[in-house]
Amino acid sequence: MRLHSAPMSGNSYKVRLLLALLGKNYELIDYDTKGGGTHAPEFLENANPDGKIPVLEVEDGTMLPESGAILLYLAEGTPYLPEDKLEKAQVLRWMFFEQYSLLLYLSRPRLWRMREVEITPQKQAELEQYFEQGYRALSVIERHLSGRKFFVGESLTVADVALYAYPYLSPEGGYDLEHFPKVRTWLDRIAALPGYVPLR
Amino acid sequence: MRLHSAPMSGNSYKVRLLLALLGKNYELIDYDTKGGGTHAPEFLENANPDGKIPVLEVEDGTMLPESGAILLYLAEGTPYLPEDKLEKAQVLRWMFFEQYSLLLYLSRPRLWRMREVEITPQKQAELEQYFEQGYRALSVIERHLSGRKFFVGESLTVADVALYAYPYLSPEGGYDLEHFPKVRTWLDRIAALPGYVPLR
Repeated sequence: MRLHSAPMSGNSYKVRLLLALLGKNYELIDYDTKGGGTHAPEFLENANPDGKIPVLEVEDGTMLPESGAILLYLAEGTPYLPEDKLEKAQVLRWMFFEQYSLLLYLSRPRLWRMREVEITPQKQAELEQYFEQGYRALSVIERHLSGRKFFVGESLTVADVALYAYPYLSPEGGYDLEHFPKVRTWLDRIAALPGYVPLR
Repeated sequence: MRLHSAPMSGNSYKVRLLLALLGKNYELIDYDTKGGGTHAPEFLENANPDGKIPVLEVEDGTMLPESGAILLYLAEGTPYLPEDKLEKAQVLRWMFFEQYSLLLYLSRPRLWRMREVEITPQKQAELEQYFEQGYRALSVIERHLSGRKFFVGESLTVADVALYAYPYLSPEGGYDLEHFPKVRTWLDRIAALPGYVPLR
């Protein structure tokens, strides 16, 4: 099993974290996404026509893009994916929420800082929208985590792994989690799990 | 079974389309999202803390938000969700692609037109980015559909249902599908399915 990844990518990190928690061995192939390695014709043809990492290369050579799909593929048959139909649906629900309502807003300010993007007035206006939407998304998970230890059920699921990466990395983009105590406690809970690995 | 929905929402339409293809009976509860019904305290408390439709209310009263999670919940055990682990993973892969890399860019121009949002220079710059990303996402699915009738395997899956809504509605936002012949043929193939229903 090979993971096509990038060192600073939150979506790649989710998969590395799950593989570490599961104690799985795999080969890591790192790309320089800024340098365009994932936009090279061979990558688009053989790995992912969307030009994005992570991509999991499974034993028969099949290429599986999209962190959410990879996480669910790896979690199937483990305690991290409930068998109960409705619980599994709630795991999916939070994973789709993360991809559509949280990820972009938390990741973009961090990406721009890492790449030292010049903040024009246009970019400044966009940043303000990202922060507004990002803090809104954080307040949704703060509310959900009230009285809960994990996102679904009583123990860790792949939904927690998926949701962990970008809030954990968000201070690198300028987010302040002071007003999200439940989120901070939950982040600490994940970081204390046996097998946990940080991004770097 | 009740579906909390909005008449013009593409994400709600995906669920209505799958329910029609499956021939399922359900109760439809329509919201005026512009009027803020989905942001009312009761909705946030009882249906979805994220304030979005669709939400599926299943028999035991459980509320399931997120179109992707609803589609997969409804498709489980039907021919629309493959049992093979890798094929199922590819279905999920395309559904996550749709939520993260396609939906926003195709839906936002349509939303702004429907709401008659004033296009300031700031909004114009954003629109141009949406169209750039949206056409890029369409080119990814155009490439994937080359030589394929459906997104995964040889027959319709819930991935096709999820991916159908926003390309189908994109001309309402100003998209031109002329240069995407494979996408257009595939859209026609979906629209010809027994049980198909249009958005309106």
